[in-house]
Amino acid sequence: MNSLRVGVLGATGIVGQQIIHRLRAHPWFRVTALAASERSAGKRYTDAAPWRIAEPIPKEIGALQIQTLNEEMDCDFVLSALDCSVAGDAEENFARRGTPVISNSSSHRMEPDVPLLIPEVNPDHIALVDAQRARRGFKSGFIVTNPNCSATGLALALKPIDDAIGIEAVSVVTMQALSGAGYPGVSSLDAADNVIPYIAAEEDKLETEPRKILGKLHGELIEPAGFRISAQCHRVPVSDGHLEAVSLKLRSKVSPEDVTEALREFRGEPQRLGLPSAPANPIEVREERDRPQPRLDRDAGGGMAVVVGRIRRCLVFDIRFVLLSHNLVRGAAGGAILNAELLAHAGYIVPRTVAAPSHNRAENFRPTLTHS
Amino acid sequence: MNSLRVGVLGATGIVGQQIIHRLRAHPWFRVTALAASERSAGKRYTDAAPWRIAEPIPKEIGALQIQTLNEEMDCDFVLSALDCSVAGDAEENFARRGTPVISNSSSHRMEPDVPLLIPEVNPDHIALVDAQRARRGFKSGFIVTNPNCSATGLALALKPIDDAIGIEAVSVVTMQALSGAGYPGVSSLDAADNVIPYIAAEEDKLETEPRKILGKLHGELIEPAGFRISAQCHRVPVSDGHLEAVSLKLRSKVSPEDVTEALREFRGEPQRLGLPSAPANPIEVREERDRPQPRLDRDAGGGMAVVVGRIRRCLVFDIRFVLLSHNLVRGAAGGAILNAELLAHAGYIVPRTVAAPSHNRAENFRPTLTHS
Amino acid sequence: MNSLRVGVLGATGIVGQQIIHRLRAHPWFRVTALAASERSAGKRYTDAAPWRIAEPIPKEIGALQIQTLNEEMDCDFVLSALDCSVAGDAEENFARRGTPVISNSSSHRMEPDVPLLIPEVNPDHIALVDAQRARRGFKSGFIVTNPNCSATGLALALKPIDDAIGIEAVSVVTMQALSGAGYPGVSSLDAADNVIPYIAAEEDKLETEPRKILGKLHGELIEPAGFRISAQCHRVPVSDGHLEAVSLKLRSKVSPEDVTEALREFRGEPQRLGLPSAPANPIEVREERDRPQPRLDRDAGGGMAVVVGRIRRCLVFDIRFVLLSHNLVRGAAGGAILNAELLAHAGYIVPRTVAAPSHNRAENFRPTLTHS
Amino acid sequence: MNSLRVGVLGATGIVGQQIIHRLRAHPWFRVTALAASERSAGKRYTDAAPWRIAEPIPKEIGALQIQTLNEEMDCDFVLSALDCSVAGDAEENFARRGTPVISNSSSHRMEPDVPLLIPEVNPDHIALVDAQRARRGFKSGFIVTNPNCSATGLALALKPIDDAIGIEAVSVVTMQALSGAGYPGVSSLDAADNVIPYIAAEEDKLETEPRKILGKLHGELIEPAGFRISAQCHRVPVSDGHLEAVSLKLRSKVSPEDVTEALREFRGEPQRLGLPSAPANPIEVREERDRPQPRLDRDAGGGMAVVVGRIRRCLVFDIRFVLLSHNLVRGAAGGAILNAELLAHAGYIVPRTVAAPSHNRAENFRPTLTHS
Repeated sequence: MNSLRVGVLGATGIVGQQIIHRLRAHPWFRVTALAASERSAGKRYTDAAPWRIAEPIPKEIGALQIQTLNEEMDCDFVLSALDCSVAGDAEENFARRGTPVISNSSSHRMEPDVPLLIPEVNPDHIALVDAQRARRGFKSGFIVTNPNCSATGLALALKPIDDAIGIEAVSVVTMQALSGAGYPGVSSLDAADNVIPYIAAEEDKLETEPRKILGKLHGELIEPAGFRISAQCHRVPVSDGHLEAVSLKLRSKVSPEDVTEALREFRGEPQRLGLPSAPANPIEVREERDRPQPRLDRDAGGGMAVVVGRIRRCLVFDIRFVLLSHNLVRGAAGGAILNAELLAHAGYIVPRTVAAPSHNRAENFRPTLTHS
Repeated sequence: MNSLRVGVLGATGIVGQQIIHRLRAHPWFRVTALAASERSAGKRYTDAAPWRIAEPIPKEIGALQIQTLNEEMDCDFVLSALDCSVAGDAEENFARRGTPVISNSSSHRMEPDVPLLIPEVNPDHIALVDAQRARRGFKSGFIVTNPNCSATGLALALKPIDDAIGIEAVSVVTMQALSGAGYPGVSSLDAADNVIPYIAAEEDKLETEPRKILGKLHGELIEPAGFRISAQCHRVPVSDGHLEAVSLKLRSKVSPEDVTEALREFRGEPQRLGLPSAPANPIEVREERDRPQPRLDRDAGGGMAVVVGRIRRCLVFDIRFVLLSHNLVRGAAGGAILNAELLAHAGYIVPRTVAAPSHNRAENFRPTLTHS
Repeated sequence: MNSLRVGVLGATGIVGQQIIHRLRAHPWFRVTALAASERSAGKRYTDAAPWRIAEPIPKEIGALQIQTLNEEMDCDFVLSALDCSVAGDAEENFARRGTPVISNSSSHRMEPDVPLLIPEVNPDHIALVDAQRARRGFKSGFIVTNPNCSATGLALALKPIDDAIGIEAVSVVTMQALSGAGYPGVSSLDAADNVIPYIAAEEDKLETEPRKILGKLHGELIEPAGFRISAQCHRVPVSDGHLEAVSLKLRSKVSPEDVTEALREFRGEPQRLGLPSAPANPIEVREERDRPQPRLDRDAGGGMAVVVGRIRRCLVFDIRFVLLSHNLVRGAAGGAILNAELLAHAGYIVPRTVAAPSHNRAENFRPTLTHS
Repeated sequence: MNSLRVGVLGATGIVGQQIIHRLRAHPWFRVTALAASERSAGKRYTDAAPWRIAEPIPKEIGALQIQTLNEEMDCDFVLSALDCSVAGDAEENFARRGTPVISNSSSHRMEPDVPLLIPEVNPDHIALVDAQRARRGFKSGFIVTNPNCSATGLALALKPIDDAIGIEAVSVVTMQALSGAGYPGVSSLDAADNVIPYIAAEEDKLETEPRKILGKLHGELIEPAGFRISAQCHRVPVSDGHLEAVSLKLRSKVSPEDVTEALREFRGEPQRLGLPSAPANPIEVREERDRPQPRLDRDAGGGMAVVVGRIRRCLVFDIRFVLLSHNLVRGAAGGAILNAELLAHAGYIVPRTVAAPSHNRAENFRPTLTHS
């Protein structure tokens, strides 16, 4: 079969479910193996996953037996949605044993030799994989991560502005969706008629990850972007879609129209290549004064576009705006899959030659692109 | 009877209801007359008001007939919860005809001779009343306003910090409750599973009102506070309680502990005087990392306290924190009543001598204070 | 162009929007004219409609100018989503002037010569159209209605049970979504953290409409089904999807499995014909003990399927279950469109010959069916 | 000190918290000891309880150390809010060791020698305590339970109707609040924009408990009430307050007015005695067509009154109505406390003579009643 085999780590969680859902008709990838914590291992997926997606579990996936994190998996690479409590070691082990690991977990994100990748923003950071392999003694395996769900939307929106104008400081206040906490996650009694002004470890991620993502690759090292970020994070009673109110101090005085244009015209490598999960526009700009709104805009670009609105002058900094991105799609499952697509296209993920013959193996996988 | 007679303008709206509710057992004030728009005029209050408060309409109020805004009212002063579309003229007329107007409406707030009053913050601004009377030819009447619901909480929290340390710039992002939009206000279809990143005219109020409130009175003029404010306002699906994420640039470097102390020890004139509606502490500081929360903290100090939490350093400015205040209480009905209490104590509101004998008149009203 | 031209009455409301949205790529129908109340008339649709659907307004529709309800419309038939306050006369007038009216409004539903049509349930009731024309002197025009949003789901679920077993009495308690009240509809302050145990006129509709729908056509009259219905209706804080808890007294003792089978195997005329909007299964039965749920199941069959779950014995009646149907789709816009499809297939809606030449006219419309 | 000492079992849960909160100023009872599961044992209450009540933990309670369920407690009786997974044995042990157990848990409710007590409904069932002691060999200890949160409201509303008219069958559909599931309980992702048509074990409780409560005591046995109950239970996104749509088949034809009068005039033993937690009216009848509503009516009678509305004829049975009761107050903590009050008044709970001298002991407790 002419596609790459995917193992999903953390398959029963809300991001694992989303990965499986989004790969149900993927042109390059198909799910062939699932792993999760001890509690689920040994069960059929149908019996173990508290499936929260309206469309049903794809039939062939429901019947798969869930493996432990220690077993060999029948796949060419893994997409990891593991909880950070176990992801560190488990992902390292998979990479060491030769499996490319495309991870949504936070465990390895800030390690200097691990790309923190958004294909539209820093595709050149893939080069870290070579340094990583050399330093850690990995052969075919490696680890590539995608950022935190809030950091992804922010970094995408900052990229064209930093390139065109230059950013000196960022103040961001988030209103994050419930699904960002996983399932069961936030108690309904905390969510009902309430806002919670605290999300564990979130502000730190949002203050550091974008600086790595927008950093410059110097040889084997990334020099973080020079601007400071202040983040205040809140959980609001919304199911999906993180909203962020952003203020920017810029290197030069520009008009809101300049910023609008930079955001609107932005395209990245996934758009140029026509990667399967790439939205036509990674950033959509809305002109209405009351958009973006989570319920109306979270599915823009199939959940892969960041929607920006209310671009206007700031009375304290220079420019402010509101952005929305779908935390489970662009900010998690879709972001990881897009990373895998870029890496497959670049030849980093290939059909794996396994000792035992596998009828599942992709003998001659070649990515087929929209534009090439 | 030994109490001041209150006329409520805009009595059927959500703030008018709250005023009536909060005066049901007030030691100084009792509601004796109601006015509202043409649509309600002539009806009994019970039949006209879409009462949204759990406790029932006070019996003697339910039977009152609603007057139009043009009629003479049997009262010593009015509390106005009129919509700003009609408040401007109506309140001016009441004041001109000799009735003190304590208003929650935005119409007159930014006029230079109208106090924008928070008793804990700028009680000296009452002196503007004399200038106002002179300039407008008012005799016993005058207009005093309380700030916008979001501006009230912010100004209260800024006051002790500006006094103790000095503020250079303020960045504030609000997450405001549905009741701030009145009734019926926000459609449930816009509120469900959603955040709306726009509230008409709100950001402008939040960027200007606190500067007037914290301004210095020079003779008959208020010089606005020197700091700039940037405000981004959002409507979140919460019934009551406005949450605000605040970042401050300060005149000197201080620790979060310094700010905590300044907020915690703050007391104002209402506390010193023991005004009936004054909370013991106008600002309550919480140490838990996930507070304040609207559902748990909006009723602090009977809804009259501002609750501040998460006071910490800001990576871009100097200090940041989260504050919560009850938009219908401190930010509207309760704030207006506290203003009336301060003005009654200061002798600006007195029993009105009317031509026709009124059995309702307060012959010998003297405010009784907790501490005096 | 080979399709039937649709005029949408009540185009700016929430059901009108849904009709426009659902016809954006319809194989038979295309929207060519819009009408609404005086307030919107004369404006472009883009400027008049408070569009609440995530996908944008179809481009060619956004530019259409909205007409009043009195003007001639360039269309072969109209789909009416008018408020019942104006629908009665307006629809009658359109029919009298020769335009087939497929209406979602309640105004004409219970009139004896107007079909209250669910294509899967009572397609034979179309025959009433001839009686209607004769009685009212209509020529090419006529009125056909679809039921109330709650009645639709109930009637669909009752049909196969009544056919197979026979129903003696129905007790139904509904938990209805906010969008059933239109936009702005329910105030967010009434919806927040609340249930409202009353929906104006709803219980009466739910107690009468299913009896007409399941009634037998005798000549030109429908004899209502013999069972009594008791309905208690509630508004719950859910955006879309009406849930109904149903108990049935049946003519003979049957097992839950019998009922399950009757529901599961049910197919109707739209399925046999392969009408464009027909779901593969009009009724989907779920076995999980906690389904159907509005958020997970309302889009079953593209929103056109009724989802039934928890079929079990009743300790008071015989059988009880829970059903869910999408109030805006099967219960309104989708139901009306399916009615139009059935009527177009049956030859009741045809390209209209108009005096003035119209470049929009469908010269040779012939419905293309999935299965024929 | 002249009050009875209370030990709270399951003190950290949402009902345990409510018990502690409601006893903070109780005239007869004061909390002197806390116990909970192993996980919390040994910690101070302040550190162990995820306190979800707006008012803070009473100071003297926060400092108490939590005991295990096996230790002796310094108290005259225990109020148990234990989870039913541990309540069965733990409560039995306390009773066997001599401690009266007033329990909110379901474990012992349906045992034939355990009163399932609502003081307004079946105070005579207390007599079962003697049979219980004899049968189980208890001396000073015993177990008395209060019903399930939904069953309590239903049984209270049925009582005066059954007495006055006679009930033949009951059909009830519930819309239950999130707090009924405890904390963390329902995931916010299941609650958001959703209704869940299933609550584990709930329907069975609602179909059996009211029949025991309204049953007749014959010697040492309760003969259950003769009517059948059909219950369908749903979880709705509301924080507190269970709503129930009820239809009744009655022994004789009566008017809605007759039922209204029976409900309105109903008073029970707690009202006659003036027990501290007794609401003036155990049942409040509302005339408005859209009441009761959870947000507006759940705190009626301090949360101890059942609010009934929409009393009208049923087209299938005889009479139907909607009722609301606060699941955490009347349906749990408040109900258990009222039971304790009745038992203390009846002399079943008395100051305990302990071997070791206790400075906490109530030497001369005598209940002081409002009316006596």
